[in-house]
Amino acid sequence: MEEPVQVQVKRVCMFWFCHIIGVFISNELCTLDEKHRLTWPEVKGGVFYILYNFLPFYWVHLFISPQGIPKRRKFLFVLALCSSLCLSGFFLCPPQAHGSPNLLMSDRLSLPICSIQMKLSSSLPLSLPQINCVTFPLPGEGPEQQLLKPNEWSYCDYFWTDKKDPQGTASVAGFEVLLQKQLKGKQMQKEMAEFIHERIKIEEEYAKNLSKLSLSPLAAQEEGTLGEAWTQLKKSLHDEAEVHLKFSNKLHSEVEKPLLTFRGDNFKKDLKKYDHHIADLRKQLASRYAGVEKARKALADRQKDLEVKTQQLEIKLSNKTEEDIKKARRKSTQAGDDLMRCVDLYNQTQSKWFEEMVTTSMELEKLEVDRIEWIQQHLRQYTTLRHETDMFNQSTVEPVDQLLQNVDPAKDRELWVKENKTGEVRPVDMDI
Amino acid sequence: MEEPVQVQVKRVCMFWFCHIIGVFISNELCTLDEKHRLTWPEVKGGVFYILYNFLPFYWVHLFISPQGIPKRRKFLFVLALCSSLCLSGFFLCPPQAHGSPNLLMSDRLSLPICSIQMKLSSSLPLSLPQINCVTFPLPGEGPEQQLLKPNEWSYCDYFWTDKKDPQGTASVAGFEVLLQKQLKGKQMQKEMAEFIHERIKIEEEYAKNLSKLSLSPLAAQEEGTLGEAWTQLKKSLHDEAEVHLKFSNKLHSEVEKPLLTFRGDNFKKDLKKYDHHIADLRKQLASRYAGVEKARKALADRQKDLEVKTQQLEIKLSNKTEEDIKKARRKSTQAGDDLMRCVDLYNQTQSKWFEEMVTTSMELEKLEVDRIEWIQQHLRQYTTLRHETDMFNQSTVEPVDQLLQNVDPAKDRELWVKENKTGEVRPVDMDI
Repeated sequence: MEEPVQVQVKRVCMFWFCHIIGVFISNELCTLDEKHRLTWPEVKGGVFYILYNFLPFYWVHLFISPQGIPKRRKFLFVLALCSSLCLSGFFLCPPQAHGSPNLLMSDRLSLPICSIQMKLSSSLPLSLPQINCVTFPLPGEGPEQQLLKPNEWSYCDYFWTDKKDPQGTASVAGFEVLLQKQLKGKQMQKEMAEFIHERIKIEEEYAKNLSKLSLSPLAAQEEGTLGEAWTQLKKSLHDEAEVHLKFSNKLHSEVEKPLLTFRGDNFKKDLKKYDHHIADLRKQLASRYAGVEKARKALADRQKDLEVKTQQLEIKLSNKTEEDIKKARRKSTQAGDDLMRCVDLYNQTQSKWFEEMVTTSMELEKLEVDRIEWIQQHLRQYTTLRHETDMFNQSTVEPVDQLLQNVDPAKDRELWVKENKTGEVRPVDMDI
Repeated sequence: MEEPVQVQVKRVCMFWFCHIIGVFISNELCTLDEKHRLTWPEVKGGVFYILYNFLPFYWVHLFISPQGIPKRRKFLFVLALCSSLCLSGFFLCPPQAHGSPNLLMSDRLSLPICSIQMKLSSSLPLSLPQINCVTFPLPGEGPEQQLLKPNEWSYCDYFWTDKKDPQGTASVAGFEVLLQKQLKGKQMQKEMAEFIHERIKIEEEYAKNLSKLSLSPLAAQEEGTLGEAWTQLKKSLHDEAEVHLKFSNKLHSEVEKPLLTFRGDNFKKDLKKYDHHIADLRKQLASRYAGVEKARKALADRQKDLEVKTQQLEIKLSNKTEEDIKKARRKSTQAGDDLMRCVDLYNQTQSKWFEEMVTTSMELEKLEVDRIEWIQQHLRQYTTLRHETDMFNQSTVEPVDQLLQNVDPAKDRELWVKENKTGEVRPVDMDI
């Protein structure tokens, strides 16, 4: 796709124009007398006239017509024709042509003027190999390809070829690899959610145990300031439990749940749509390719037929008339046209597939970027919650520290003695 | 124990001295003629003479002697005697006397001169009540007692009386209450250790769960920078587990174990020693008290006997001679001496018990202060460990944060594409 289509079309038109002018001039030069001039009715309209001159069958007419054309005219005709061909051929050869016009040109030029051997083999050498119906340039051939998005390691640059399945003969489209990556990403987020869920369960268990222990009556009989500190210490376990419960709740709502619901079921459906769309285009491409192959075979058959018939006529092997030759020639031309049409359709379809590949792989690339960033953001939420939790946890110890600082044995003794004293009056000596 | 013993002794001596002088003078006044003078041999020595005058038996002698003493002399004697008693009695009444001399004084003064009714009941009113063999001042009576250790709510000031068991008749020594407090303290520390042990179990469970989860293969297939961050996140759970395990180990070695081993078995033995020691002293006191009671009863018996015998002699009921009276009198006096001795012993024992109570209750007080401070210190260790743990826990999140910050979708794409690309060469148009 080095040249825009419009340029190519232009060139082809120019070729034909020159060629027609040349033939016309040649014709006029050679058939000045009315006798030998080709009459329009004979050439079935202008279009056919033009087509008739695509291949130098006129030459044949010249040399096998019953009325001999003077050698001088023949020579002039040939001269004019060749000149026009050379001139118009110029238009057909773009600076960076893949070589087919070249090939065509060389094919034509190398044909000995006296030979009517047409070196058209049944397997017309297509200049480029197809892999799974996709046309790639030959290694070393063609212009150097620049990455569509250099330095970006973009999906649209690296997944053109199908991946061979190492074990079997089947192969996987490059696009399929990209799609699988996205599906795997979905699986990853599901597993991450599961992991977080497990963490939540662990936290809830821990909180439950701490809460239960905080209700323990152990050493509840400790009184005074020490008793207060101890009571607060036990209570702090409940506070810790609350912190961990809060942590687990937030983990659930801010990390686990989002991980589970990010890109819900619609995501897989969307991916499937992409998958089917691209697969359909490949299928279309395959069928177009089949069409090309079919047309190519048909053309080869037609050419063979014409060759055979022409040979037969020359050696007067059969009673084939010129009419038969013309018919075979026409069919051959038609087959050639068909082939061109099929190749065009194929190229159109490949272009369509190409565009879709680029667009969709860019979409997938964006999806992957989004996925990574989204997960990064939510894992950061996890670490934030962890930080918070540890800080809140630290604060549960503060009141315990405070009360421990206030522990006062003297005060405790006062409290206890006031509560438990038996009598303040001291004994005295007995007296009689 | 408001007055030093020496002062009391002085007073008693003064009393006796005056009393003796008085009696002597009286005697001289009344028995000028040799006939009626008490002869020394009759009174069996000076001491007995003194004792003889402790109670006004001389009066008896005066009034029942066969030789009548002129009324005038009797009158003078009585006057002199009373004066001397009043004078000497002054010495017996300290500014804050408990009242026994007073009582004694009033007893003597209230006796009608003509009455020989001796208001000596068999239960000689001891001026102070005993509670469980311990002698306390009557409410309102006696000098005001100051606390031994004012403003300190010291054990030695508040546990003198036995505590009545609300249900039964038994009572518990104040010291016993103090002892129970110490035993309860030991129970408290044991229960605290148990609580810490439960916490340790919870922490170990938590650590085990975190560690197990950290090994989970969930989302292990995530690659690139995101995969690294995720791997570190999982690993951080193991780091957290380590932190909690370290916490539980330190809880065990720095809090639980000390709580279990603080004041080992020896402590209870020491307490038992105190218990037995004090209990023994109380038993001694009780037996001394029993001795006093016994001596008192014996004295009362003797007095009764003497009274009876004297009455009998007066009404010439029996053939009891003066010798019998004297014998009875002597036994009475001896019983009085015994009583005095028993009272002394009782008071000594009570003093001993008193001293031991003060000393030991101070010991227990110190033990309690030590216990409270020790527990305070170790509970502070608990809170310190909690602080540490939360800090270490926070640090386990740092590397995760770091790697999350490094998450780079572009880099991850590069890595993945390099690994998974299928082909870079882009398709081209088919040409024939």
